[in-house]
Amino acid sequence: MREAYRDQLGQLADALAEMCGMATTAIELATQALLTADLTLAEQVIADDAKLDEARSQGEEHAFALLALQAPVAGDLRNVVAALHAAESLERMGDLALHVAKTARRRHPQAVLPDEVAPYFVEMGRVASELGKQAEQVIRTRSVSLARQLEDADDEMDDLHRHLFTVLMQKDWKHGLPAAVDITLLGRFYERFADHAVSVARRVVFVVTGEHPQQADSGS
Amino acid sequence: MREAYRDQLGQLADALAEMCGMATTAIELATQALLTADLTLAEQVIADDAKLDEARSQGEEHAFALLALQAPVAGDLRNVVAALHAAESLERMGDLALHVAKTARRRHPQAVLPDEVAPYFVEMGRVASELGKQAEQVIRTRSVSLARQLEDADDEMDDLHRHLFTVLMQKDWKHGLPAAVDITLLGRFYERFADHAVSVARRVVFVVTGEHPQQADSGS
Repeated sequence: MREAYRDQLGQLADALAEMCGMATTAIELATQALLTADLTLAEQVIADDAKLDEARSQGEEHAFALLALQAPVAGDLRNVVAALHAAESLERMGDLALHVAKTARRRHPQAVLPDEVAPYFVEMGRVASELGKQAEQVIRTRSVSLARQLEDADDEMDDLHRHLFTVLMQKDWKHGLPAAVDITLLGRFYERFADHAVSVARRVVFVVTGEHPQQADSGS
Repeated sequence: MREAYRDQLGQLADALAEMCGMATTAIELATQALLTADLTLAEQVIADDAKLDEARSQGEEHAFALLALQAPVAGDLRNVVAALHAAESLERMGDLALHVAKTARRRHPQAVLPDEVAPYFVEMGRVASELGKQAEQVIRTRSVSLARQLEDADDEMDDLHRHLFTVLMQKDWKHGLPAAVDITLLGRFYERFADHAVSVARRVVFVVTGEHPQQADSGS
């Protein structure tokens, strides 16, 4: 029974890691769609989001079955509860990538990003992808030290986000208000993606150390 | 034992309802602070957020203890898991009210909202408060029909949000880009507050009916 339980817990972690990989791919493709006004890519991200929703639903059922049939306690219980929370964050990361893709689709064939802000999104996309990959590794390895590294990448995202706003607020902005509104929301989507990745990693830290995670806040 | 368990589940629901009341008060006060550029009120919302964070942490510990000591199954288990998710949404609702209050504080003594958009925030504040109160009632009464009503209020929020953007995009906008950026984010905070309230209600529906809730999406 104990052995079977461990196996199931391992499968649950694998499923979460896979969800994390899906969310990472989604933000990578959405960023590319945004930067290159690639409608096909945007449509792919939008269509693929249902798979992540389905994976979350399955993960939740799996966690549920573990709780009902095995009645875990202590560390094992913490593990399952963390998995439930992580699944929610991972689905949300997918939703945020979806929003980026939808913005690209809505403006197609126009590019959403003027030249002076595009580099910020190249960087925010890179950091988001890095955070997604790190979170996946944290789920797989339960490495507390790697989980702490996510905080650094998240700080980098916050810096990028702040600088982006500085550019937006400059007096000589000449791309009009609709572009500014899109960019404001896009910046927020990347920032929240990062927050959720950090939140997933913090949940793993909680499981490993018993130390209660702080809620990843949005810094605004 | 069974009786004691029911009592504890009731206490957990009470704690969640109280958290929901705190989040509702927070968005009401934050809206007032925003509309009247009231710094004292904004500071109060900002200071009070720690109480909601603490309540969430306690609620989670409580749910955890229930799972560990009572090993609930079936409907009872669903109840505890829903409580874990609801606590997360309720804390997030508090965070969003906090963001509104911080925006009011950052711009003080200036008003954040030009006259032509203020009425939208009066309305969005009213709908957010209504959703918060309805969600609290759903937690207390587990009424599925009341939970469904939240969807209507959420639609109203989405409509307000869309109209707000129409006003922002008008060619004769003369309040500058920083105001537009603030308003874009504020609109998003209210919309997300509503989504989370709906999500809490859907979790209760899941507990009562066993029907899996759809994730409240942000509609953008």
